[in-house]
Amino acid sequence: MPQQRPNVVIVGAGFGGLPAAMTLGRAPVDVTIIDRQNYHCFQPLLYQVATAALSPAEVAWPIRHILRRQSNATVFMAEVTGVDAEAQTVHTGSGPFRYDFLVVASGATHSYFGHDEWATFAPGLKRIEDATRVRRSILAAFEQAELAGYDEARRRLLTFVIVGGGPTGVEMAGAIAEVARQTLARDFRRIDPRTARIVLLEAGPRLLPSFSERHSAYALRTLTAMGVEVKTGTPVVRCAARGVDLEHGRIDAGAIVWAAGVVASSAAQWLAAERDRAGRVIVRPDLSLAGHTNIFVIGDTASAIDETGRAVPGLAPAAKQMGDYVGRLIAARLAGGSLPPFRYRNQGTLATIGRRAAIVELGPIQLKGFVGWLFWSMVHIYFLIGLRNRFVVALTWLWGYITFQRGARLITDVPPPRFQ
Amino acid sequence: MPQQRPNVVIVGAGFGGLPAAMTLGRAPVDVTIIDRQNYHCFQPLLYQVATAALSPAEVAWPIRHILRRQSNATVFMAEVTGVDAEAQTVHTGSGPFRYDFLVVASGATHSYFGHDEWATFAPGLKRIEDATRVRRSILAAFEQAELAGYDEARRRLLTFVIVGGGPTGVEMAGAIAEVARQTLARDFRRIDPRTARIVLLEAGPRLLPSFSERHSAYALRTLTAMGVEVKTGTPVVRCAARGVDLEHGRIDAGAIVWAAGVVASSAAQWLAAERDRAGRVIVRPDLSLAGHTNIFVIGDTASAIDETGRAVPGLAPAAKQMGDYVGRLIAARLAGGSLPPFRYRNQGTLATIGRRAAIVELGPIQLKGFVGWLFWSMVHIYFLIGLRNRFVVALTWLWGYITFQRGARLITDVPPPRFQ
Repeated sequence: MPQQRPNVVIVGAGFGGLPAAMTLGRAPVDVTIIDRQNYHCFQPLLYQVATAALSPAEVAWPIRHILRRQSNATVFMAEVTGVDAEAQTVHTGSGPFRYDFLVVASGATHSYFGHDEWATFAPGLKRIEDATRVRRSILAAFEQAELAGYDEARRRLLTFVIVGGGPTGVEMAGAIAEVARQTLARDFRRIDPRTARIVLLEAGPRLLPSFSERHSAYALRTLTAMGVEVKTGTPVVRCAARGVDLEHGRIDAGAIVWAAGVVASSAAQWLAAERDRAGRVIVRPDLSLAGHTNIFVIGDTASAIDETGRAVPGLAPAAKQMGDYVGRLIAARLAGGSLPPFRYRNQGTLATIGRRAAIVELGPIQLKGFVGWLFWSMVHIYFLIGLRNRFVVALTWLWGYITFQRGARLITDVPPPRFQ
Repeated sequence: MPQQRPNVVIVGAGFGGLPAAMTLGRAPVDVTIIDRQNYHCFQPLLYQVATAALSPAEVAWPIRHILRRQSNATVFMAEVTGVDAEAQTVHTGSGPFRYDFLVVASGATHSYFGHDEWATFAPGLKRIEDATRVRRSILAAFEQAELAGYDEARRRLLTFVIVGGGPTGVEMAGAIAEVARQTLARDFRRIDPRTARIVLLEAGPRLLPSFSERHSAYALRTLTAMGVEVKTGTPVVRCAARGVDLEHGRIDAGAIVWAAGVVASSAAQWLAAERDRAGRVIVRPDLSLAGHTNIFVIGDTASAIDETGRAVPGLAPAAKQMGDYVGRLIAARLAGGSLPPFRYRNQGTLATIGRRAAIVELGPIQLKGFVGWLFWSMVHIYFLIGLRNRFVVALTWLWGYITFQRGARLITDVPPPRFQ
C-alpha cells in the first residue's frame, strides 16, 4: 500500500495561491487547488478588458493548463462554503476536501462601504465578468447618446464618472479618455465622442495616495491634459442609475465605474478568525493563523506585518512572495526544519495613466512619462502567463499604439432576442 | 435649405445588410443601419469561439467602425419592434425611423421545432452569447467530471451530444473531439478527457445533406476516425437537463449543442408578409415585397427564387450577393433606371471537420482533406473583417496547429461571488 502523502489544500489560484502550488511542485505532498473559476486572472490588466483594448482570454489562463506538468497538483473548480478546522476539512458546493495543510488565498472584491445596492449602477473591476460589464456600460452609453433626441440626455450619457483615485481609477480615467478622444473619434454621426466628459472622483486629498506626492501631481497634470476632470476631496454620497450624488451637488452620468475600495473574501468567516477593518484575516509572522499552525492565509485576504514591522501591502508581488514563502515553509516543516518569519521585499509599485504615461517607484528607480510607460509595458508582458498571451498582448498593444484602435469593442451579454 | 435626400433604412448589419449599406456608399442617399448588436458577427467562425479556439472579439467587429469612413451612413444600436409600411416607418425600442427605402436583413435564429424550452439545455450557435454559453457548458462538463464521485456521473458528464448533422454540427463534433483528445489531454488528474464520448445525431439519412454523397461519406469516415459516434436517421424527441431522448432510448450527456434548424427573424410579422415554412418572407425576383416596391428582404430572412428558378440558399455568400444587388437596385432606381432580376452565383460551399480536414464544393473544384482545409482556412481569413483580426486569427490558428492548444478556455458569466 503506498504511503499516504500529506495533502495541501490551496483555496484560490490568484497571485498568492498559484505560486504556493508551484513552490510545492517537488515537495512530498499532494496539492489540491480549489478555485471558483477555471482560470487565473491577471487582474492588473482587467482595466484594459473594461476599455475594449484586450479580450478576456488575453488576461486569463486556465489554472489546470498552467499546472498541467505538475503531477502532484490536482485542480478543482468549486466554490468554498466553509472550513472545519477541527476536522481539517474544506467544505465546497461540490463536496468536502480533507487537508493536512490549508492555504487560503481567496483574494478580495470591491467594497461599497455598506452600500451593496450601488453595485448595480457602479460595477467594479475584480473579475472578468466585471470587466465585460464595465465595457458594456461604457460602449452602450455612446450608443445611446447617438440615439438620444435631446442635448441634455446626450450630455448625461457622454459623462463618465470614475469613483476612486487609486491606480485602477487613474488607469480607467485615462483609458476612457483615450477611447472617447481617439478610438471612437470618427465613428459617430450625431455625437462627437471627443466631447465626452470624464470625471475622476477621489475622497482623499490627492490621487495615487500610495505613491509620492511628486507622482500624484504628475498623474493629476497628465490626466488634466488628457481632458479628465479630477476632483479630489470629493466623496461620493450615493450611486444611482443616472449618476452620483456628492456632498454638494450631483453629477449625471451615462456610466459609473467603481474603483474605490476593496474588502477581503469571506475567509475570516470560514475560519472564525480575527479580522481587520477591511475584513482581512490577521496572521502571525509566519502567515499562519493563531492557534492553527497548519492554516495559512496569504495575499489580499491576509493582514500581515512582516518581520521589519511594516504592513504587507495588497499588491500582486506581495501576494506572490507570500505564496512562495508558505510553499517553502510547508516543505521545510515536512523536512523537519523551519524558516524565519516572512519578509516582504518591495519590488516597486507601478501605475499607468495612458498612452506613453506611467509611473514607476522602485526604491531608487523613479520613472515617469514615456520611459515609465515602456517599463510598465514590459513588466506586464513579462508577468503574463503563457507564451501565446505575451505575444498576442504585445502585438495588440503595438497595433493599438500605431492605430489608436481597440479590438474588443463588443457589447455582449445583452438579453436574447425576442424572435417570434 | 439643403435638399432632403432619400433615406434608406437597413435593418441588420450581417452578411446581407452590411454589403447593402456599403454598395450605397456613393449613392445620393442617407443610409441608416439599425442592429440590435453593436457588432457584425462572422457567424461561420462562431463554432471556434464555442470550442475555445478564438475569442469573441476575433470574430466580431463594431459596425460603426467598419462604416466609419462612409459619410452617408449612420449606425444605430436599437431593437426593431415593427414596421408601419403606410407611414414608411420602422419602430424600435429607441424610437421611430422614417424610410424611403427599407432593406430588412435581420437574419435567422435556431429553431427548436416548437420546443423553445429545449433552448435552456441545448444552446445553439447564432450569437456571440450563444457561443460563450456553449463554451461554458462544454468546459464546465469536464470540470464537473473531475469533481464527480461516481463513474456513472463521470460517464454522463463526459458525453457530448450534438444535434444536427449539417455544417455546424459536423464542425462542432470535430472540434469537441479535438478539445477532448488533444487540448485537454494532459490537464486533468482524475479523469482522462480522451475517453469522452462525442455523439453526433442527424435525423436524416446522411451528414451534410447539402453536399455530395461522396463528401458526406468522407465526413462520416473522418469523424469516425476522430472518435465521434455518428448516428444518422436518429431524430431527437426531447432535450432535457441531463441528456436527450431518442425514439428508442436515451443518451445521458454533460452538454448538448443544438445545430439542427434555423428559423427566420420576425420580419414576416413586422411586414405582415407571406412567409414560408421556415418563417422567411417570400420575395419577388427583385427581392422586393409584393405590393411594396420600396421594401426589400434579403439574406436568411428572405425566401427567394432567382431568375434561373432555383431557391437561393441560406448561405453567407448568397446574403452578400443579395445585399449588393439591392444596394445597386436602389441606386439605379434613383437614377431613373432599373436592374434585371436577382441572379445567384454559386460561390461554393465549405465545411470543415477538424484539423487538416475540410470539404470544398465549388463547381468543378472539389477539394477535401488537407488541401480543402488549407483552402477553407484561407477563405475564412480573407473574409474576416479588419486587418488586425485577420492577422490575429491566422496567428492563433498557426499557434493552435503547432501546439494543439486553445487560448480562450474561460468559463465566464457565472453568477457573482457570495462574498460576505
